[in-house]
Parts: sequence; structure tokens; C-alpha cells
Amino acid sequence: MAIDAAHVARGAKLRLGMVGGGRDAFIGAVHRIAARIDGEYELVAGCFSSTPEKSAASGADLGLNPARVYSSYAEMAQREARRKDGINAVSIVTPNHLHAPVAKEFLKRGIHVICDKPLTGTLADAKSLAKAAEKSDALFILTHNYTGYPMIRQAQEMVASGELGEIRVLHVQYVQDWLSTPLEQTGSKQAEWRTDPARSGGGGAVGDIGTHAQNLASFVTGLETEALAADLHRFVPGRQLDDNGHVLLRYKGGARGMLWCSQVSPGNENALRLQVYGDKGGIEWDQENPNLLWFTKLGQPKQLITRGGAGSGAAAARVSRIPPGHPEGYLEGFANIYAEAARAIRARMAGLPLPADVHFPTMADGVAGVAFVDACVRSSAKNAAWVTL
Amino acid sequence: MAIDAAHVARGAKLRLGMVGGGRDAFIGAVHRIAARIDGEYELVAGCFSSTPEKSAASGADLGLNPARVYSSYAEMAQREARRKDGINAVSIVTPNHLHAPVAKEFLKRGIHVICDKPLTGTLADAKSLAKAAEKSDALFILTHNYTGYPMIRQAQEMVASGELGEIRVLHVQYVQDWLSTPLEQTGSKQAEWRTDPARSGGGGAVGDIGTHAQNLASFVTGLETEALAADLHRFVPGRQLDDNGHVLLRYKGGARGMLWCSQVSPGNENALRLQVYGDKGGIEWDQENPNLLWFTKLGQPKQLITRGGAGSGAAAARVSRIPPGHPEGYLEGFANIYAEAARAIRARMAGLPLPADVHFPTMADGVAGVAFVDACVRSSAKNAAWVTL
Amino acid sequence: MAIDAAHVARGAKLRLGMVGGGRDAFIGAVHRIAARIDGEYELVAGCFSSTPEKSAASGADLGLNPARVYSSYAEMAQREARRKDGINAVSIVTPNHLHAPVAKEFLKRGIHVICDKPLTGTLADAKSLAKAAEKSDALFILTHNYTGYPMIRQAQEMVASGELGEIRVLHVQYVQDWLSTPLEQTGSKQAEWRTDPARSGGGGAVGDIGTHAQNLASFVTGLETEALAADLHRFVPGRQLDDNGHVLLRYKGGARGMLWCSQVSPGNENALRLQVYGDKGGIEWDQENPNLLWFTKLGQPKQLITRGGAGSGAAAARVSRIPPGHPEGYLEGFANIYAEAARAIRARMAGLPLPADVHFPTMADGVAGVAFVDACVRSSAKNAAWVTL
Amino acid sequence: MAIDAAHVARGAKLRLGMVGGGRDAFIGAVHRIAARIDGEYELVAGCFSSTPEKSAASGADLGLNPARVYSSYAEMAQREARRKDGINAVSIVTPNHLHAPVAKEFLKRGIHVICDKPLTGTLADAKSLAKAAEKSDALFILTHNYTGYPMIRQAQEMVASGELGEIRVLHVQYVQDWLSTPLEQTGSKQAEWRTDPARSGGGGAVGDIGTHAQNLASFVTGLETEALAADLHRFVPGRQLDDNGHVLLRYKGGARGMLWCSQVSPGNENALRLQVYGDKGGIEWDQENPNLLWFTKLGQPKQLITRGGAGSGAAAARVSRIPPGHPEGYLEGFANIYAEAARAIRARMAGLPLPADVHFPTMADGVAGVAFVDACVRSSAKNAAWVTL
Repeated sequence: MAIDAAHVARGAKLRLGMVGGGRDAFIGAVHRIAARIDGEYELVAGCFSSTPEKSAASGADLGLNPARVYSSYAEMAQREARRKDGINAVSIVTPNHLHAPVAKEFLKRGIHVICDKPLTGTLADAKSLAKAAEKSDALFILTHNYTGYPMIRQAQEMVASGELGEIRVLHVQYVQDWLSTPLEQTGSKQAEWRTDPARSGGGGAVGDIGTHAQNLASFVTGLETEALAADLHRFVPGRQLDDNGHVLLRYKGGARGMLWCSQVSPGNENALRLQVYGDKGGIEWDQENPNLLWFTKLGQPKQLITRGGAGSGAAAARVSRIPPGHPEGYLEGFANIYAEAARAIRARMAGLPLPADVHFPTMADGVAGVAFVDACVRSSAKNAAWVTL
Repeated sequence: MAIDAAHVARGAKLRLGMVGGGRDAFIGAVHRIAARIDGEYELVAGCFSSTPEKSAASGADLGLNPARVYSSYAEMAQREARRKDGINAVSIVTPNHLHAPVAKEFLKRGIHVICDKPLTGTLADAKSLAKAAEKSDALFILTHNYTGYPMIRQAQEMVASGELGEIRVLHVQYVQDWLSTPLEQTGSKQAEWRTDPARSGGGGAVGDIGTHAQNLASFVTGLETEALAADLHRFVPGRQLDDNGHVLLRYKGGARGMLWCSQVSPGNENALRLQVYGDKGGIEWDQENPNLLWFTKLGQPKQLITRGGAGSGAAAARVSRIPPGHPEGYLEGFANIYAEAARAIRARMAGLPLPADVHFPTMADGVAGVAFVDACVRSSAKNAAWVTL
Repeated sequence: MAIDAAHVARGAKLRLGMVGGGRDAFIGAVHRIAARIDGEYELVAGCFSSTPEKSAASGADLGLNPARVYSSYAEMAQREARRKDGINAVSIVTPNHLHAPVAKEFLKRGIHVICDKPLTGTLADAKSLAKAAEKSDALFILTHNYTGYPMIRQAQEMVASGELGEIRVLHVQYVQDWLSTPLEQTGSKQAEWRTDPARSGGGGAVGDIGTHAQNLASFVTGLETEALAADLHRFVPGRQLDDNGHVLLRYKGGARGMLWCSQVSPGNENALRLQVYGDKGGIEWDQENPNLLWFTKLGQPKQLITRGGAGSGAAAARVSRIPPGHPEGYLEGFANIYAEAARAIRARMAGLPLPADVHFPTMADGVAGVAFVDACVRSSAKNAAWVTL
Repeated sequence: MAIDAAHVARGAKLRLGMVGGGRDAFIGAVHRIAARIDGEYELVAGCFSSTPEKSAASGADLGLNPARVYSSYAEMAQREARRKDGINAVSIVTPNHLHAPVAKEFLKRGIHVICDKPLTGTLADAKSLAKAAEKSDALFILTHNYTGYPMIRQAQEMVASGELGEIRVLHVQYVQDWLSTPLEQTGSKQAEWRTDPARSGGGGAVGDIGTHAQNLASFVTGLETEALAADLHRFVPGRQLDDNGHVLLRYKGGARGMLWCSQVSPGNENALRLQVYGDKGGIEWDQENPNLLWFTKLGQPKQLITRGGAGSGAAAARVSRIPPGHPEGYLEGFANIYAEAARAIRARMAGLPLPADVHFPTMADGVAGVAFVDACVRSSAKNAAWVTL
């Protein structure tokens, strides 16, 4: 219960706004729950749609003061920045192409930004946003939420402390089946924008979920991609973006890897799995049963490390709430990003340096993610030629 | 995301108090998170300890108004009942022997009670509390939280709709290892009161976790226990209450079952598992991977039903927040009890009948649970003789 | 590949006969494959049915010399005993009630007997057969085949060497679904005799599979049952023997256990599972994935020991053929009983003492098994009263 | 028990010889057990080593007539071909570079050849051997044993019957850890020749196990590889051949795939796994638990099809011996290749056409396998450039 003890004790809640995430949006609701779990935030303002009626209706659903429900994010940023009780932070949960323009409005007014991934739809946008963030005092937190899972923190800690030895091989995949049919032609809003280059950017599956896989592998191993060769493909007739991708990876220092993302593999819901092997040991993790981490020390029996159980260390404990055997899930992992963000924001508001042990995905991670997608798209366009990063 | 849409839209939060659950208590923190997840409650008062300094410190940790932090639950009930902005409901998270006296103080003042399980330490207390609840307009909700898991709702729905046919056999277990050593002699507060008859009642493992298993089986199958024969045992030297129990079960209508609870089985964290078999099919569920439900229609391949996936129905959807493949966990299941309670409390506060589809464990479930423990203890004292319920 | 090296090198194959196991019999074919796997035996004679045409047809299927295919087991015993090239051993794979009379005919002529389980249908028969075996120089091997699995040998070795400490609790089950309907009324020979008291004895599920579970628990732990209380039940209308049983177990020395056998639990094929817990550790094993053994040392992460992998010791290696990761199965486990029998028979034929490390289930195990079934039936008839063994 | 009934009934056993497979060789013992399981073959001759004493010692271990134990395979072929009771078939279990010269000696004398994989070390050898086989009346059977697993037959049948629709994506891997250290420098014979280009050919992991993965994917899907891009790597210092490989695959007709083979991934014994996804459904299989096949029909719950259980069809039944829930393993799968070979050899010996339903991996499969390894090596040498097959 590290988090309950550590986070709630800080007094007044942070005031949070949200852009995007109106009725029927999936990820907006997730962000709201994640923000509530540890009691660190209170949602007080929002721009849930550019259509005033829709935004107002969503705001009403959420019990917000109608005066703080906007249909223009720019107006929201201006007016909230002027209020004495204005928001301290904003969650951006729009389609990808809006991340950059929205975030800039808030960053330039010193409002901290918690932004959904991928950072942007294009690499140019990503770089431009990075510059905007550099000029701002406000923090930028990217919700690569899978890094919030305690056993991913455990894995990261084990790699960092050398328990696997020198990393040689990694295999990471994020496999789904929800786009096995042309769902985007049947009225699904979610499918529509995810498969629309104008709103998602140049990557389909690789942008939506491949980027999660890339980020996870990078977070756990600390390895930097040197070059990649990607074979992206569209299987569903009429689809505009890739729905399956196979990527060969070469890391600085000599490790090799493989990444597979797919949205057309029946029988897979969110099969995000990571396997990392070094010369002394290996680890394996599956997002669908996230409280477990398999660890093998070369020449010894495989061990099943459970969140909070024997063998589970300080990094996992810091982002856990309940004892082993009581599964924490996706929402708690997501909440950990919000909790870490709160610690960082409170430190920044107090003029203090960020705590040494805090972790959240940053602008740099976001740029790396978009660069990864961009490199995959370029490689694939050249028949899976190697692209250096 | 049924819950996000349905619950948050109700306007002002319910004002919640808490009795018990100070620093270092496990279950108090769980209740607080569960109450926060869906944004239905705001914790505004508490009596976290009978020692004033301890209660005050816990209240301060939680950012409460010091004027509403008490060291006497009776005083808390009186004063909160008199306040205009007094609590609407109280969470009771004390050791078992205090449930009845605390609950009565709030019930008689019309304050709704959300109480941890088991209902009480003794059957006499349980019956007395039941009478007190009958006389009150306030609701009584027992947090048999495992009934809040979506796939348990799914299982209940499948049994009720006849997909398993007539139930013949059930097997339920709740197996742990945390009391394999005399932990209560080493300063563990949790172990101390759990193994102390004065605070826990006559059942050790059977009261703490056997009662969860019994409640789960009962909820899913709707079967009533007719008779049981229990072989309880204390393995750890010096322990005062059972740490392992095997129970033969006979249900009205002819089904037979077996219940196993243990706190001395190394390698088990919270192995709460339920298997139910009828003449047409069977289901199997494991709390440690709770988003899955195995279903076999006799003569057909085993199916893996996932929360929100194909084959998962309305009952599970009503208490789910996120799409399949993103695991929900223990805290979301617990939060579902709080969310259901909120719906019921709001209806009661509005003078309306309870919604037809709302479910929460009630006083009757609580009395049945204590009667189960009592019967097990009596049976075991008579060398596992049959005891009729 | 311990077995390949150790067993095949002995020169001439042992000459084997078979009683029972004609066309369409399940277990006869299993015995024949088990006898072939390690090249130790050659099937040269048989009495596959008491109907001459049927026996002859089965003998022809198997390529036997027609002169050595009999329709009377007594005649087979007499004539084979007289031949210079007569059988060294006989496999008895008839329904239970014939085990004793058939075995006696061969034992009294010094022909070694390999007999399917349970030993007999009645305790009187078991005791009478035990006496007959005592008077004979021939060996008696009972095919409680599950004790032949390498990881069961591993488990036995770990318990014996104290890795679990003092055993406290065990849970064993053998659960199936094939008798969920009145299959015996539809022409299934297998179902007919298994549910017929005249051919199976007083136990149904408890005799067929409960006895496997009892034997497995006993083999692994070395514990002796002191008393039991059994609740047997017939669920399928018209069935004459139990198809589900729950048994409370008390062992000499203080351990407690629970045994569940069922043939009416849809979704279970051969769910034979054993869990054993001591004060220092626990083990868990599942027959349907038999190359794995879970081991937890109290306070350490769970380990997955694989057949032949790290942590797997000499006892498992002695009965393994291939490296880890290449699954051995039911037939290899069964073959291990035959291979052990061959070692013992060859030693006996050479006038040598049995090798110290050889293990096979004996007459004593068989009598214990029938006594277990008998005790269960008596206990159940007295409403699950305790019966001392 | 399809096989027991179908195969043993054929009268006299086939006379089998073996080249390679002396003491301490792994795969020779496996072939011998596989040949024994169904009673179709009798091992009567062998050339177990080119050192006369070693060959003789191995022959003696196996109880062979010393006159039929050779130290020259050419002499063995000549002399056995001349004997009236000469061998009908020979098993070749030498290192890869000897497959072609040995096989040719037997093929040209009309002796059927059962040969371990990969076919040869070089593509030139493979083609030359294919020509030799064409000129011979004798059959050539390649022991790509994993195609003998019943659930792989089931998978093949399901793909062929259209249950998955049009195949889009496949993922296949064969991952081990036994070469994580420089084992070949420590005296391990197995490691020595597997990592020696002179004896294994140009592929290390890709030749030893990658070729199994390629063959399995090809067998199940019936797809033909159009082009591949391979990134092979040697991680262990001093190693001469690849110990890890990642391969992008493009199939005729448009499917895409990925193959991963590794011998340096700690915690993996023989993790051969296949996933195949079409527009209507998907299947998943794991060699380490081979009696299970996961099947998802798009939009329905995942099904667990068990060998011989509900949903398991004729193709699996034909190569199964025992009922569901009793696991068959690696040796039975291997034995199925021998059993199928026996059917084919008997048909050929009788001058009949091969049975329509018989399946065994052929010379064509072998050439395809070597071509695959050759293409991977060439692609990798050109920095993972595409190579057309």
C-alpha cells in the first residue's frame, strides 16, 4: 500500500482539466478513473468536443460546473490560466493529430500536460512539440501506461541490477483482433480515427500498439534502437493504414530483437508480451496476467515472481497498493502514471527538484516513439530496408 | 465502461465516514480506494483508532478536517448525525468483534453502513445486529467483495439461466500460506487479531477466508446449505484458532460440495477458486486471474470467456469499466460493491425502491456467513459430525 | 535416456501373456504399448475373451501364434506353464472381479503377474489374493501407473528428503466428466462394467479413480491413512455405483487431507491433481501436464521444475527417456511400471535380490487401495462417519 | 487407439537397420523407441560408429547379432542388401553432413530410408540426394517429427477445411537455452557437431531448430514461402554458427509471417510454438503442452480443443493411441512418423499405391528445409536482404 500512504497525504487535490474524452470515448474514461484512484486529482474543467452541445453534455455527465466546460481548447487554456482556481494540469485524450496543438496551448501557459500516446501523428509535430515543452516550465507526462505495471518496474529493476547479465535477445509483441474486419466502415468512431492517416499519422497498428511495445521494451531494457527493418501490411480490404507489422530490431551494444504488432489476429485481445534474454538469465511478462513475472537464472528452475511476493523488490512495491495474490490491473497501472505525475507536479509547484525515484514517460520517450513509427513506415515503404535511428 | 457512464453522473458525491482503517491497516486502504474509483464518495470523517493521537494522525494523512476525526465511534455517530453536512454512509473496517456495536450506532441514526466481512465474530452478535438493521431505515451492505468481480456476475448469470443445468457438484477453496509460521507471535498486528478468538470469533481460517469461499459459492449457485461436516485444524504450535479446514457440504435440492480453506499451504497467496458442475455444463474460476471464466457445455470444447469478450453477457458488462484484454483486478471488484451501494443509497435517499438489477451482499448474507462459521466450529468440535443449518 | 541405456541391454526379451484386453478394450492396448516401449517384452500368448472366436480374432489382430491364443485363462496358465518357451509374465487387464481368480492361476505356477488396478472388487478377494501371492515365488506388480511419472518420482524424492518439512495438508483429486450421462445404458462396454457392482466391486468413481488418487498421495507422501469420512453419491439416475465422492482424510502423524473423485464434472478429462504442503514448502502437480512440478520453498518464489531440467533429480532421471522440453506422457509413465517390473523379474529369474532403487506398486499397495475403497463405501453408508483403517 | 488397432495387425515386423545413434547419442535412442512403440519394426542391424569397437559395443547394448553390427555404412548396405533376411528399412541418425552419402548407399539398393532432419548440411547435397531418391524405388521418409503430433494434424485439417478462412499472419518460434554458454568448448559431443559448419552445414540454430519451425508452419498452413529476410547472429564468443535468428517471411498468396529461433534464451527448453491467423479464425499450439490446440472463431470465445476431446477430428484420431486427458508426448508424435512410414513401406512392398491418408515428411520437404536454411544464411550475409525462394 505504498501509494495510499505516500500520495494521499499531500493535502489539497490537484485541479485537473481534460481535452477530448467525451461520451463513448474509451480512453477518456480510463484517464478519469486513473486520476481518481489515488485521490490526487479533481476533475474541474474540460473541453470534451468541439461541438458545444456535445461538450456540454459530457461535462454534465461528469458533474462539472458548466462554466468550465468548453468547446475550444484554446479558449479553455486561456480562461483556465486566468482563473485563480484554474487547473494545475490537463489531460489530453484526443486523436493523435491534435496532441501537439492542444498541448502547446497549455504548455505555454505553464499548465502541466498529461498526454495520451503516441505523442503525435508525425515526427515534425513531435519535434515541434518537444521544442514547445522545452520553453515551458510545465511538465509533460506521456501516458505510456504499461510502464506503470509493478512487475514491469520489477523487470526494469532486475535488468538494471544485472540479474540478466548482458542483454542479447528480446521479443516483444502487441497482438489484437479487433480490426480483423473493416470495422471502420461500420460506424465505429474508434476504428475510424485509428485507421485514418489524417488523425492517426502514418502508422496504423504500429502507431497505436507497436509504439506501446517499443516503449515497453525500451523502458525495461534501457536499450537504444540502432536500426530497424519493418514489414508493415494492410490485410483488410480498403484499410488505409497497416494492421499488421513485423519489425527486426538492432540495438546499440549488439542486442537483437523482434517486434510484432497486429490487429488482425483472431483470439487475441491485448496480447502485449515481453521476453528479454541476457547471458545470465531471462524474463517473460504478459500484460493479460500482469501480476506475474517469470524469471530464469541460467541453469536454475524458472521462478514465478508475483507482485509483492517473494523476490519482488522495491521498485514494484513503490507502485503497488495491495498484497500479493490480489490482482492489480490495467487501471492501477495507469493510475501509477497519474500518481507519479502528481508527485512530480507537486514538487515542481513547490519549486523542488523532481524526486529521484519518480518515473513517468517523458517528451523524450514520446519523440522516440514517433521516430520509431516514422522509421517503420519509411522502412516498410522501401521493402523493409534497414533504417538507422 | 458501464460504470463510468452510469455512476458519475449523479451529481454531488456521497459523504463517507470510516471506522477503523488507520495507518498500517490493510483493508481500510482498500475500502478507501474502492470508494474513490468511481467518484461516488468523498471521505469526510473518520474514527481510525480509539487512541486519539493515532486517529488524528491517520486523519491528517488523509487530509481530513481535524474536527471530523474522532477517537470514539459512538461520538462520531452522534456528531455526524447532527451535522447538516454529516456523513451519508460509514465504512466499518475494524476487527470482527466490533462490527456489531459500531454498526448499531450508525444504523440507529439512519446512517447507511458498509461493513467488512465476516459480519460479526459470534452468531449471537450477528442476530442482534440483524435485528438492529431491521429497525433502521438505513441500508446495510456487507463487502463480500469477490461477488463484485465481473466474471463472478457472469457465472451467476449463467447458472441462473440454466446453462449448467441442474447443479450437482461444487468445489470451492480459499488457500493461502501467510500463516504457515507463528506470525502472530512476531508482532504482526494483522496476524494477531486474525488468530485471536476475542477479536475474530470462533473461526480462524474458516472465518477469515472460508466465509469468502462459502459466500462466493452461494452467490454463484444460489444454493442453500442444508448440512455440513467440518474438519478444522490448528497446525502451527501455539495458535488459538484453526488455520486449515476441510468441509463437506450438502445443499438443499441434492447438490454436494467441498470447501477447503487454508492459511498454511506454501505457494498459495490468495487461491480462491470455484468450480461448479451441473448436468449440462461446468464453470471454473480463479481469483488470481479473475478476468477469465472457463465454461464447458457438456460434449463441447472448453471455452475461455473473457470479461467483456465474446460470450460475456450483460451482468458482467454492468460492472466492467474497460474493454476485454485489459485486466480489471481486486480493487475494481471491490469498487463494484461500493458502486452498487451508491446506487442503492441514492435510491433510498430519493425515496425510491432499489433498482432491480443492483446487487450487493446483505445482512442476510452476513448472518448466513456467520452461521456457516458457527456450524463449522460446532461440527469440528464434534469430530466433524454433520450439523444442519 | 536412462531407460534406453539401462533396460534394453539385457539380452532376450521377456515373454509376456495377456488376459483380457481384446478388441475395443482401452486398457489392454495401453498395457501392450507400455510393454513395447522399452523393448523388454514380447507378447506371445493371450486369453482375450472367454468367447473362443473373439479371443482368436484379437490374437490374430496382434499377430500371435493361434496355438497360444486361449479362451480359458486357466487353460492358458496350465499350458504356458508347461511350455519350454512359456510366458515369463502375464498382464491381467480384465474387469476387477476377475483379477483375483486369474492372478491365482498364474501365481501358483510361478508366472509373474502384472495386474491392472484396483487389485480386486472386494476386500475379501484382495486378502485372499495377497495370501496366494505370499505362497508364490512369482512377483506381483500392480499398475498404479501414475506413480511411474518422472515428476511424481521427483515429488516423492523431495518429500522424502525433507524439502517440504513435516507434511501438514494434502489435497488430491481425480475428476472426469465421461459419466455425466447414463452412458452405461447406451451400449458402452466400458461404462457398463465400471458401473456394475458385480464386476467393479462396491466402489464406482471411488474404485476406478479415487483409488488412483489415494495411491498417488500415499506414494508421494509416504503417509498412512488413519481414518477417513466419505460422502459418496450417485447423481445420474439409474446408476448403481457412486459417480462422485468427497473424502476427509486423517493421516498417522497428524496430517490432514481431502480427496475428491468425480465422473460427472463437465470440462474435466483426467484432472488428477496433487497438492502437498509441509511446514517448509509445498508441491503441486497436474497429470494433464505431467512434465511440470511446482515447488515453493516457504518464503521464496514458486519454482517450476521440469522433467530433466534444473532442480530435477536422480529419481526422475532414472525413469526418463528424453531431454527436458520434450514432453513424455501417459504411455511413458505406464511403460516405467513395465520397465521396473522387467528389472525386478530379471533379477528374480537370476536368483538375485531386487535392485534397491527399483519401485513398482505391490500387493500391499493393492490391498491398501481396496481397503480404502471399502472404508469409503462403509463410511458413506453410515452418513460419512469416520472409519478407521 | 486408432494406431494400435490399425498397425499391429500386419503380421511380421519390418526389419530395421540404423546408421549412427551409438552410445550417448540422443536422437538414435529416440528413433529406436519411436520404432518400437507400435510394434511395427524390429531393429536387426546397425552401424553405430565408424570405430569398430564403439559400434560393436552399441550393438551389444541393443542385443543385436554381432554379425550384423558394422563399422562401415557402405558395407552394411551391401551386406544387408544381399541377405535374405536383410533390413527392409534403415534409420539414418548421423550428423547432417553424412545424411546424403549414407542415404544414397541404401537407396540405390532399394532399402527404404528413414532419415533425421535437416535433410543435409548443404543445398547441393540436398539436390543430389533428391536425384538419387528419384532413381530409387525405395521410399524416403524425413523425420520432421513435430508433424506427427495429433493436434498438429488437427490444425492442418482445420486450416485445410477453411475454418480459419484465408490465412493472413503466422508466427512461429523454436526457442531454447542450452547453448547460452560455449558448451561446445567443454566436451559436449552434441554441442560440438551442432555448432560445427563441417558437420551441420551453414546454419546453426536456424538449421537445427529453425528448420523444424519452418517445416511445421508449412505443414499446417500449406503455404509456400515466396521470400524471406533473415537476421542471424552469433552471441556466444567463439561460436562458429548462428545461435539466434529472426526471419521475416512472405508467402505466396499474400500471407506474412515471422520466425524466431534461438538457443540462447534462458528459461526456454523446447519452446516450439505456432500461431496462425486467418480472416475467420486463429489457432495456437505449444509443443511443450502438445495435447492442446487453442482455436478462436472470430467473434466467439476461445476454445480449448484437446486431443481426442470434443472438436478434435479424424486427422488427430488417426494418429492417437489413448483417450483425451491422458497426455501423449514427443515419443508418440515421433512414433507416428514411424507408423506412417510402416504403412507406406508395407504398401510399397506389396506393390500397392500409398494409402491416400498417409502422411510423412518427404524428400521435397527436406529440400525445402535446406533451401530455407540456405536462403536464411544468404540473406543474413547480405544484411537481411530479401531472398526469393
